[in-house]
Formats: sequence, C-alpha cells, structure tokens
Amino acid sequence: MSDLHGRNLIAGTRCDSDSVLKVTSPIDGSQLPGQFCLASLEDVEAAMRAAAAAAEPLAGTTGELRATFLERIASEIMDLGDALIERACLETALPAARLTGERGRTVNQLKMFAAAAREGAWVDARIERALPDRQPLPRPDLRRLKRPIGPVVVFGSSNFPLAFSVAGGDTASALCTGNPVVVKAHRAHPGTSELVAEAIQRAVAACGLPAGTFSMLHGAGSEIGIALVKHPATRAVGFTGSQAAGRALCDAAAARPDPIPVFAEMSSLNPVFLLPNALADRAAAIAQGFVGSMTLGVGQFCTKPGLVFAAVGPQLDRFKAAVAEAIMAVAPASMLTAEIRDAFEQGRDGVTGQPRTTVLARSATSADPARTEAAGLVVETDADTFLASERLADEVFGPFAVVVAVQSADQFLQIARRLEGQLTATLHGSTADLAEAGPLVELLAARAGRLIVNGWPTGVEVCTAMQHGGPWPATSDARFTSVGTAALERFIRPVCYQDVPQSLLPAALQDGNPLGILRLVEGVLDRH
Amino acid sequence: MSDLHGRNLIAGTRCDSDSVLKVTSPIDGSQLPGQFCLASLEDVEAAMRAAAAAAEPLAGTTGELRATFLERIASEIMDLGDALIERACLETALPAARLTGERGRTVNQLKMFAAAAREGAWVDARIERALPDRQPLPRPDLRRLKRPIGPVVVFGSSNFPLAFSVAGGDTASALCTGNPVVVKAHRAHPGTSELVAEAIQRAVAACGLPAGTFSMLHGAGSEIGIALVKHPATRAVGFTGSQAAGRALCDAAAARPDPIPVFAEMSSLNPVFLLPNALADRAAAIAQGFVGSMTLGVGQFCTKPGLVFAAVGPQLDRFKAAVAEAIMAVAPASMLTAEIRDAFEQGRDGVTGQPRTTVLARSATSADPARTEAAGLVVETDADTFLASERLADEVFGPFAVVVAVQSADQFLQIARRLEGQLTATLHGSTADLAEAGPLVELLAARAGRLIVNGWPTGVEVCTAMQHGGPWPATSDARFTSVGTAALERFIRPVCYQDVPQSLLPAALQDGNPLGILRLVEGVLDRH
Repeated sequence: MSDLHGRNLIAGTRCDSDSVLKVTSPIDGSQLPGQFCLASLEDVEAAMRAAAAAAEPLAGTTGELRATFLERIASEIMDLGDALIERACLETALPAARLTGERGRTVNQLKMFAAAAREGAWVDARIERALPDRQPLPRPDLRRLKRPIGPVVVFGSSNFPLAFSVAGGDTASALCTGNPVVVKAHRAHPGTSELVAEAIQRAVAACGLPAGTFSMLHGAGSEIGIALVKHPATRAVGFTGSQAAGRALCDAAAARPDPIPVFAEMSSLNPVFLLPNALADRAAAIAQGFVGSMTLGVGQFCTKPGLVFAAVGPQLDRFKAAVAEAIMAVAPASMLTAEIRDAFEQGRDGVTGQPRTTVLARSATSADPARTEAAGLVVETDADTFLASERLADEVFGPFAVVVAVQSADQFLQIARRLEGQLTATLHGSTADLAEAGPLVELLAARAGRLIVNGWPTGVEVCTAMQHGGPWPATSDARFTSVGTAALERFIRPVCYQDVPQSLLPAALQDGNPLGILRLVEGVLDRH
Repeated sequence: MSDLHGRNLIAGTRCDSDSVLKVTSPIDGSQLPGQFCLASLEDVEAAMRAAAAAAEPLAGTTGELRATFLERIASEIMDLGDALIERACLETALPAARLTGERGRTVNQLKMFAAAAREGAWVDARIERALPDRQPLPRPDLRRLKRPIGPVVVFGSSNFPLAFSVAGGDTASALCTGNPVVVKAHRAHPGTSELVAEAIQRAVAACGLPAGTFSMLHGAGSEIGIALVKHPATRAVGFTGSQAAGRALCDAAAARPDPIPVFAEMSSLNPVFLLPNALADRAAAIAQGFVGSMTLGVGQFCTKPGLVFAAVGPQLDRFKAAVAEAIMAVAPASMLTAEIRDAFEQGRDGVTGQPRTTVLARSATSADPARTEAAGLVVETDADTFLASERLADEVFGPFAVVVAVQSADQFLQIARRLEGQLTATLHGSTADLAEAGPLVELLAARAGRLIVNGWPTGVEVCTAMQHGGPWPATSDARFTSVGTAALERFIRPVCYQDVPQSLLPAALQDGNPLGILRLVEGVLDRH
C-alpha cells in the first residue's frame, strides 16, 4: 500500500501538485497511508487535450485491438491481487467478499464489452444501395454506421468503487466504442482508483494505444468536475451519485456553447407494491426479503427499496411484525464515508419527523459513530399522509425505508401516478393479485426503468436485456442504460456515407462485409 | 380557402381566442384570407393535459391500429387535394411543383412509419431467460423493450410547410411509437397547418383514438412555445428552425425541474471541399451543380452548401468563372417570409462586409422587395482569412455562399479541424484526389452527420440508412436523426421486465413471439 504514488495520471504521465487529499478509513476514522495530488485546472486542460488528440487514432482502431485492450485491463486488474481488495476495504468499509464479487463483475463487464468490440455489430451498419434509374430522381448509395462520439468524462461513484468507478461500466463502454476516457476519481477511494488507473495505463501501453486514451484526476470539490464537463473537448459525461451533484453537471453541460449529453444516475426510491393476497400468503417471507434488500450493503445501493406500499388488513400487521423482528436483528455497519453517514442521519431524521409518521422498527444495536456506522430504521405512515406530503418521497441513501399502508386498489393506482421517475418498481402479488394488476403495471412501466415481480430490486444483472435508467430524477436520460451491453449506445453517433467509394468507406460498410457483421441491407438483416 | 376556421385545435375541439394572427403572402405582400386565433397559456394547459390523458391508452394500442391511423392521415392529406397546395403556395411562395413533391414525401413518410408500426421490431425486444441453477446466484428472467416516452411537442418549420411541419417526420415518428403530439404551428403558414391538422383530427376520430392524441396551437412569439416545452406533461420536443430559437428551447428544457430531450435541427454550413484534380477535370460541371444546390428553393434548405473550399490554381479560376455565369442566370425569387428575407440580407451583408472578402458574382436581376425576393450572391476569400475570421462561418439562410481558396492539402485538413458541427460535408475528388483523402474523410466524419462524395447535400433521402443530424450547432443531439426510419428512436425508452408473468408482459416480450417480430433472445436475433 505504501506503493501508492498519489499523483494524477495524465496520458501516461504521473503529475504532481501542491495540494493534496488524505483519506481516512470509515472503519475507524484512522488516516490511511498515501496522499493524493489534487488536480489543477491545468491538469484538466492537459488531460482533455491529450484525450482530444487520441480521439482520431482511437476511432480508427480495429474492434479486435480494442477487445484485446479491454481484456488486458481485466487481467491487469486481476493481477493487482489482494492489494486492490485490501485497499478498497480500508477506503470503503465494504467487506472483502463484496469487493471480490464486485471485482469479478467489473472484470466480466470489461470482457463483455471486449466481446462487443470484437463482434462489431454495435456500429448498427445500414446499407441502401444506389438506384440510378429510380423516378423521378435516382437514389444515391447510402450507408450508415455509428462511430465514437469523442472524449468521455467519467465520474467514479462512491458506492461501487470498482464496478461504477475507474474501470467500471461507463469507462468500459466508452473504450469499447473507441472513445478516450478521462476519469474523475471519487475522493473517498483515491488509492483504489490509483491502482485501477495504473492497471488501465499499463494496458494502454501494452496495446500501443495513444497515451491520451486514458487519464485520471483526483479532485476534492466540484471545481475539477465542472471544468471537465465544460471543457470544449468533452463530448459526453457519465456520472453516478447524488441528485444535487448530477443536476450540477447536467446544468453545466446544458450551459455550454455546445451542450453535451450527461448520463447521470442519481436518485431512486425503488417503490415496492405489496398486494393483499401476496401479503396474506407470505407476509413473513416478504418482510425477510424486504429487510435483506433494504439493508444490503448498508442500504447503499441505487436500487435499495426505500418505499413500500402495502395493502391494509391483518396481513399488514403480520408483515410489520416480521419487518420489525428482522430489522432489529440487523447489526449496524460502517457506511462509505462520514459525509454519507451524516447525510443519511439528516435525511432519515427529516422523514421520521414528518407528521403522522412513526417508527416501525430499528436495529436493536446503536450505531457507533466512531466506526461511521448506520443502524437500520423503518418508519410507517398511511397513504393519505404519503399523498399529501412533499417529504416522504425524499431519497435517503442508507438502511432506511418508509412503509405506507394503502387502503384500496384505487389508492395503489393513485400512488403510482404520483411517483417521480424510478430506476425500478417492484410488485409482490399472488396469481389472483396479478390478474388484476395490469393497470398498475402499465403505470409503473411509464415511470420506472425496470419492473420486478415477486423479487427485489437490488442485484442488477449485466446482460443484453438489462435497463438501468429511468425517468428523471432516477437518471438524466431515460432512453439509455448504464448497465448491460446497451450501455455502449450512450457514446456513439451515426454518420451516413453517401456515394462514398469503397476505399474510403469504413470496413463495416464495405461491399462483401469484410467484418462479417450483421447489417441492415435494403431493410433486411444480413451477414453478406 | 374561406373555409379556414382559424381556431386552435385542442383534442378534437376548435378553440377560439381574442387575439388573432393574420398572414400576408410573401409573393405580393397581400393579406391572405383567414385569421388565426393565438393560443393562450390556458390552451397550452388544455392541450398538454389532454395529451397526458391520451398517453396511457395510446401506449396500449396495437401497431396495427397505429399503422392504420398513420395511413389514414396520409389519405386524409391527399383528400385535401389542390386546396392544400394552393394555400401553401400563397403562404410560402414555394412553387406548386415543389409543394406537390413535398406532399408526396410527407405522405410517404407517414406510410413508412405506418409500416414500421405494423412491423413492430422498433421495440428492440430482448430476452434473457431465467437461469435458476446459475452459481453463485440464479439469474432472473429479464425482458426488455422500448416503449413510448410520452407527449411530444413538435414545432413546425418554416421551410418545409408539409414534410417538417404539422404532419411531418417528427409527428409521424412520435405517433408511430405511440406518443401523443401537440404541434405548435409555424406562424408563417397557419392556413396550411390548419388544413393538415384537421386531416389528422379526422384520422384520430376515424380510428377511435383518444382525442388528446393530437392538438395544434397557433402562436406568434416565443411565449407559447416555451410554455409547451416547460409543461410538466411534455416528455420530448422536436424542432426545426434557427439556432437562436433552438437554443432557447434547449435552455428551457434543460432548466426544467425534470430536464427533457429537445431534438433541434438548427444551423449548418454544409461545407464542400473541391479537391484539385476534380476541379481540373470538371470545373464547369461542379460550378453548375454547386449553384443549383445553393439556390434550390431560394437557398432555404438546411442542407444548402454555404461554404466551398476549393484548391487554388488555374482550375479555380475556371470554377469561379462558371459559378459567376451560373449565378448571374439565376432569377431572384420570393423567400418564405419578410422576416427571413430581412435576416438573409442582414446576414449576407455581414459576411460580405468582412475584410479581404469580395463579391464573386450575383444574380443579374435585382430582387424585388415587394415580392420578398432574394437574389443569389457568392463571395470569395482565401483560407488564411477564413481561418482568422469569426464571422465567415456564420450561417446565412438563403441563396448565399462563400468560396474559399485553399493553398494545400494541409490547409484543407486545418479547415476541417476548425469546423463546427454540420449536417453534411461534401467532397469532390477524382480517383487520384480521393486516394489521398482518407484523413480528410476521417476529420469530416467526426464533424458531420452525412458525408457526400461527388454529389450535393440538398436532397435528403428518407430511408433506413439516412442520418440527418450532426454535432452542435447542426442539431442539439448528434446521436439521433430527424429523417428516416431511425427518427422514431428519439421518442422511445427502454423498460426491463424482471420475472414478470406472461399475462402481464407486453405481447412483444411474450413466449412464442405472438407478434412474430425479430427479437434478441439470449443474444441471438430470432423470430421464434
């Protein structure tokens, strides 16, 4: 760990600065080894200039080379071995088993995007050949593909120090499609970030890619992040974090002379609807699942279920008793940072203090402030109070949720109509419940990116069919996902080639299909 | 023509107002029959409320019904007969032949989107079935499709009173995918807009769709447009017009509590690069093609070539002489409106007055102000002047262009690097020229949405391979197109269904593929 050099990594060069960031462990408040250079505005300029210079050569690389590069990043990360997990544990207080799993996910994501780069169909090639004899006008030869958008700025998240951070899904999907990446490391895990950034840098060098393909900067406040978003060379932004920070980045991007897209994943309550027969059938099991999902990772998942709407009746009392029993048994645990713990306590107290809102249950053990701990808490209220309140749907990041007693099927619909955009919405229902749930499902589909039946929202599968993104404020652009293969669609844009000779066409559009990819030719998908 | 009722059309109801808009013909400045009610903020509220109410039922319609609806709009428009063309001629001064062609394009676009709605693959269905035995964790059943985004506000353009207006590509692609549409009619052709809006309204009624599926409002200033963009129910915006107006809409959308996407097509110079051997081989033919493209429709196309970069040498003198001859022969013609003519003259004079910029040639006949005419004008300068100037790359909407003499291949690259985002970029080159044009093509692909070789940018084919959209300021979002089948991608967003029972799944995701559409099943495209 004493090997950490603490410098910003700009296009393969380690850059010093005068002001430094030190980091304390949330586990015991102790100062961790290493100090990290805070980037200057000159560093932003240097990193973005290098990224801009790398954009053209990188856009011209083969999918095979980019695949090799991504796979090399994966193997370099694995080669970091226990040192990576140990540092990440100290910086985040996340357990080693969780971080080992997250590393596996990160590496698998890199391999998935390597496969996409190698396979090559992401360019979405479309060909309509010339019709010189068409009346009244001939048709020219038209061929369209998607190409990289240009330098992408990625903000590491606090809660996924590996999978949504330096070499996470944003970086992997941007590199897969040939875009240079500049990462703003999260201030809470700079050592973890440095280890991964060095792994990426080694892969850049090993693959002979332009040095500006990747840079990573440390920053403590918002200045460096905003400067990255506003830099003229930046073409898109990926971010996972709070609504306030995401909004600030969106606003900065929208105010540019040339606005650019920001993919911000921000805030989601992930409402759960407990229909009457499901509760009657299995109140205890649902309570168990709910408390497990809500307290997983100390409630620090973007998909944590924070709102539970449950049908009133005797079954609700059984549910609440089981929730109380389960939550009392959950031991307090360290959160990612003291700031996050403070925000949790403040948010929790803000909701708990609302009128006609009472504590349903809390962890039996108190949180230890010296260990940055949070204790689980569930409050309860009724639907009328919820519908009349401005505050009960505030996101509280951490092990906290609100259970709302709902009087009728109509009230379920009324609540669904009132919800803001969500990453997920969950329904628990028996066959009989679900037979009547069509209207509720339709309403939720209009408000959430993922609908789950008889399951829990935590756990986001990385695959072709995943959608991790929903209407504002869940994410800033519901048309895209930050998880799964479709995440690469954020960082590409189409170009049409009209009557361009074969020799000047990208291989993906040439006659004879030299890449052997699936293409839409005269409206028909084809590999020829 | 005296049949025009002049009212706003809100969810099937004709709504009066106190203040009215009258319209003069650009052809002779005469006041045209009919007066048009200017919408109030209450009208905006009523139209958007109706659209919001229609969103849910419309999202639930079958592709077959939406196809029938779009085809019915097409036939209703054709049934308007000569009255539509005649009114449009009077309001826009565009010739009947051009408007008849544009009507054909509009109707064909509606039919193309009808076919897309009926075919149904636009939902991009993806299925990854459950893997209950997977280690360490089972995989749930995950199915993803794209669904309508919600009410879309469309701004009619001035220069395509049919194809980019009330029933144009924005409206057709939004309706195709199940979104309600509220159109802000362009103030320059309110009668044309009313005729088409009534045709759409008849189709709404004939197909039994919710009344809020379609509304159209008249507005004279920016107030109604901004109110439509800011309305909470609005989910996306389509716009074609000036950069100033587009920017205002983008800013309003970005400042909402929940920012929404704006697809604004705004400003493009459509640079043309004339390489030395092409000029040597066929200077006169290129000059002819250029002047034809530049003066087509009185230069009022978003794809008008406004900047020509030509290699210096004797061939350039021949080119300029041929341009001069051709432009002198082009008769002045009426522009769309007096405001557009005034802006043309102001923009033209601003560029013409720049240092080291001289008039190459102008129409032999003077423009008649009483007929709102503009006369063609081409100015010339050299590359050093162009590169040093802030003004020579200002868009001038109308029959105006700048020819820039370029010294070397390097200077061509230098110019390409300096260009802002463009809808198109065009290259004229011989085989020998093109053999060395790879780097130039790469640079242009990074800056334009469509590259044309040995052709002209005016004429935008409506097909699967078209891209009409480029980096800012050409459009506000280079990742999307406003022309061609891919235009529908602007108005949809993905939703993932996790472990949702068959009976609650949309048909597109059900086992057995009842819609028979192409789907990505376990990563493989499949119709089963």
